[in-house]
Amino acid sequence: MKKAVILLSGGLDSTTCLAYAKSKNFDCYALSFNYGQRHQAELNAAKSIAAHFNAEHKIFDLNMHQFAGSALTDIVMDIPAYNENASAIPTTYVPARNTVFLSIALAWAEVLKAKDIFIGVSAIDYSGYPDCRPEYIKAFQHLANLATKVGVEEGGIEIHTPLINLSKAETINLGLQLGINYAMTVSCYQASEHGHACGKCDSCTFRKKGFSALKANDPTLYQV
Amino acid sequence: MKKAVILLSGGLDSTTCLAYAKSKNFDCYALSFNYGQRHQAELNAAKSIAAHFNAEHKIFDLNMHQFAGSALTDIVMDIPAYNENASAIPTTYVPARNTVFLSIALAWAEVLKAKDIFIGVSAIDYSGYPDCRPEYIKAFQHLANLATKVGVEEGGIEIHTPLINLSKAETINLGLQLGINYAMTVSCYQASEHGHACGKCDSCTFRKKGFSALKANDPTLYQV
Repeated sequence: MKKAVILLSGGLDSTTCLAYAKSKNFDCYALSFNYGQRHQAELNAAKSIAAHFNAEHKIFDLNMHQFAGSALTDIVMDIPAYNENASAIPTTYVPARNTVFLSIALAWAEVLKAKDIFIGVSAIDYSGYPDCRPEYIKAFQHLANLATKVGVEEGGIEIHTPLINLSKAETINLGLQLGINYAMTVSCYQASEHGHACGKCDSCTFRKKGFSALKANDPTLYQV
Repeated sequence: MKKAVILLSGGLDSTTCLAYAKSKNFDCYALSFNYGQRHQAELNAAKSIAAHFNAEHKIFDLNMHQFAGSALTDIVMDIPAYNENASAIPTTYVPARNTVFLSIALAWAEVLKAKDIFIGVSAIDYSGYPDCRPEYIKAFQHLANLATKVGVEEGGIEIHTPLINLSKAETINLGLQLGINYAMTVSCYQASEHGHACGKCDSCTFRKKGFSALKANDPTLYQV
């Protein structure tokens, strides 16, 4: 079995990505980050999800508070409510987040001698983060093959983005076909300690719309 | 003054790089990593050097021991002695190191609204690490401009590599012209607690040869 590193936040997208990698017969190594997010609920979810899918799981400590400047890591700032007409990059942006996360995934992949990395980014129903676009992923794959022993000496590293062209509804549909119980996942930017979602932030809004568009039952636990 | 993030290990190259950035009138933010290296001597050196050059200094905790598999971070393995005929990538390679370090430098740059990052890599007198080559740096710069708010919305991020085409002797010559006292710097892979160098590893060998080729006094403190 080929080894793969899967970035796993514990949210809907990364969980679908893990289930997809398993369905393609990869030996999965799930990587989560304790990067100073507001709540531990998504890390708890990631732990349960990795165990459910029989994947080795590592939670990597990476204190991004050292570089405050984003609503997601700076607890002083408020999370903005969803705004349909927002075009600028939102303040929930974490500086260079996917670059940092993919780099550390690459380091683990090199140690494991894995050539495959999965990340659940989507360029469709997303919040305007620049590091979710196909050209960004392509650039990272190019870099990875120049950067590492496994890339240079042993051939191609591949960054897999199975969700990149899927809408949220299509992602949910894929996940349901793969047997995911989405009640396990936490997408909310400001979930409660027990993983109950606010229902108002960007991430909750995209998720709700996805279930609604699919006319599927939304198993998310919302705060009352 | 333009802000710049400078990767500073406390060794000869990164110190020269910092002195160079200062000479070009950048407002310098020096970034070091506590990544599980064998000794603290280079971090102590980095601290003194940053203070000497009046640069803000951050030591970022990043426990790479979590991904053991390189002599530099795995204290169980021996550091290989210098081998002139070695062609393979040496075991002192730290998985994806420059990619991880540059990514975190990029995160800090974005928070600081800095568009300039300096890294003291050289493609001349080096140990065969793939992430020291010009094509790698070019790929990272391309990625950085796709990855970040500052790259996408505010124009180009530049990765500066003033030493990339310099031999070790030329780097030392540049540093001496910039007034560096190289006794402050620690290059050795296995320096003593007080920063005394082994004189035998790759890094010591390149450094010694540099001073020798330049017929300059080598102020390095060696272990007896």
